[in-house]
Order: sequence, then C-alpha cells, then structure tokens
Amino acid sequence: MNRLDSDTVVQIGIIVADVEKTARGYAEVFGVPLPQAVPIAVDSFAHTIYRGKPSQAAGRAAFFHLGAIEIELIQPVGAPSTWEEFLRQRGEGIHHIAFRTAKIDEAQDFLRSKGMDLVQSGGWDGGRYAYLDASGQLGTILELLHFD
Amino acid sequence: MNRLDSDTVVQIGIIVADVEKTARGYAEVFGVPLPQAVPIAVDSFAHTIYRGKPSQAAGRAAFFHLGAIEIELIQPVGAPSTWEEFLRQRGEGIHHIAFRTAKIDEAQDFLRSKGMDLVQSGGWDGGRYAYLDASGQLGTILELLHFD
Repeated sequence: MNRLDSDTVVQIGIIVADVEKTARGYAEVFGVPLPQAVPIAVDSFAHTIYRGKPSQAAGRAAFFHLGAIEIELIQPVGAPSTWEEFLRQRGEGIHHIAFRTAKIDEAQDFLRSKGMDLVQSGGWDGGRYAYLDASGQLGTILELLHFD
Repeated sequence: MNRLDSDTVVQIGIIVADVEKTARGYAEVFGVPLPQAVPIAVDSFAHTIYRGKPSQAAGRAAFFHLGAIEIELIQPVGAPSTWEEFLRQRGEGIHHIAFRTAKIDEAQDFLRSKGMDLVQSGGWDGGRYAYLDASGQLGTILELLHFD
C-alpha cells in the first residue's frame, strides 16, 4: 500500500466534557432531533488497546448527521484512552477525522510507516477501529473504520 | 431565525505551522496532487475584523477535497487573527468546521444569540466569512461562508 485506500472523510469526532449538554447545543443550532447518548467501548466486542495495553476505559457518544458527515460527540469515561488524554491535555475540541477502509490492517501499517503512532484500537458489534496520531504529519488524529 | 439555515459541513479548517510541509503529508497519504499554497486575507476584499478591530493579519492556505469535504490548511501570517491565536494557544489542530449560508448576517445574529462570540470576519473576491466561537456550546469554532 502506497496510499490510504480512502480519501473520503466520513466522520468528525469531537471530545466533550458533557455529551448531553453539547448534544442539546447541536440539536438547537441545527434544528435536528436530540439523539440519545450511548455507551461506547463497554461491551464484549470492545477489546480496547491503548498505547499497546488493554484498557477498560470507555465513553459516552452522541451522533449527528450533518450533510455527508457524521459528527460524533464523545465524553470520556474512565482512563486511559485517547479520548481522556485529549480532554485532559487540550480540553474540548475536534479530536479526529475518520475514514472508512476495507483493509484496516494494511492501512494501519501504511500510516505507521509514515511515522504515525497507533494510539488506540478496538471494535464494536459490526466493525473495528484504529486511531493513528497524525498530529505531526496532518495536524490531527486519524481514525480508520472497518465494517465487517 | 430559530436555527442555522444549513446543516451541511462543507469544510474542515486545520491550523498548521508550515502549510507546505503539512500539504505534502496530505498529498502523500491520500495520493492526491500537491496544491499550491495561496495567500489569504491579503487583498482589497479582505476587510479582516478580529474581535471588533481591523487587522492586517493574514494566512497561507492549501485546499484538499476529500469526499464531500474540503480540508483547508491554514498557516497564520502575522497577528492578531483567530488562526494565530489558535496556533499560539493550542498548537496545530482542527480549528473549525464550516457551513455555507445564504443569510450570513442573520446566521451570525442567531449564533450570537446562543452566546457565541464573533471572533473574526472578512471577505474575498466572491464572498464573505465569519468565525463564531462555539467552543463552549458545540466544542469547536464554526465558520459561516457566504458566496455572492
């Protein structure tokens, strides 16, 4: 692989301190229904690995669809996770842009060959994800999303 | 206006220290042509207002189209600007998400009524923009874009 097998941003992830509060803000500003916040990284599919070690940290998330883009609001729950790390180090703000990939292992290897650290990986009932720290190369963390 | 007249994210703005360096990163990772960096906020259309006062600050920008989204890399040039402020306070990172609006004045007034400060506004040959600080409400700065 000499390039990522996707060039379509599908999601923007925003770290927040209180997911219900920020979700109410989005619903009001954009005139859309208020989604229910849902737990993430809590079930038997999670297998969360943070900087090389298993972690029980989790999150609470709310999703909005604004045009072709999904906005994911994430409130960290517990530690360690890239979500908790970001909130502690930088405060609320945009944490990642996500790309869908058919070959997540190859895509990870490619990005790591560009000097990006694998910060966190895990899964859900239906897919797997990986966060690569591209701060130095692309000015943000990237998330790879793989759907089974 | 009781909601924003757009719910489509059209652009993600990323503040970087060296626009050519980061642009090379995007071109390599996504396998797309390297765009020429261009000066922004430098011509007679700029009329930059930063926190209520005219500013001569500018930027250098490079644009990528990744799916339905434009990625704008912005290197601050001079001060004061929201770009320079962000780089100084937070370092490189995602600065804003942008929405296209047909009624930028009404949209600004609506967002200000929600407690968001008008941080910077200005124009180019073809349109006008405004940055509203929605950090506390939406976890990010919003940009409104109006095309003449």
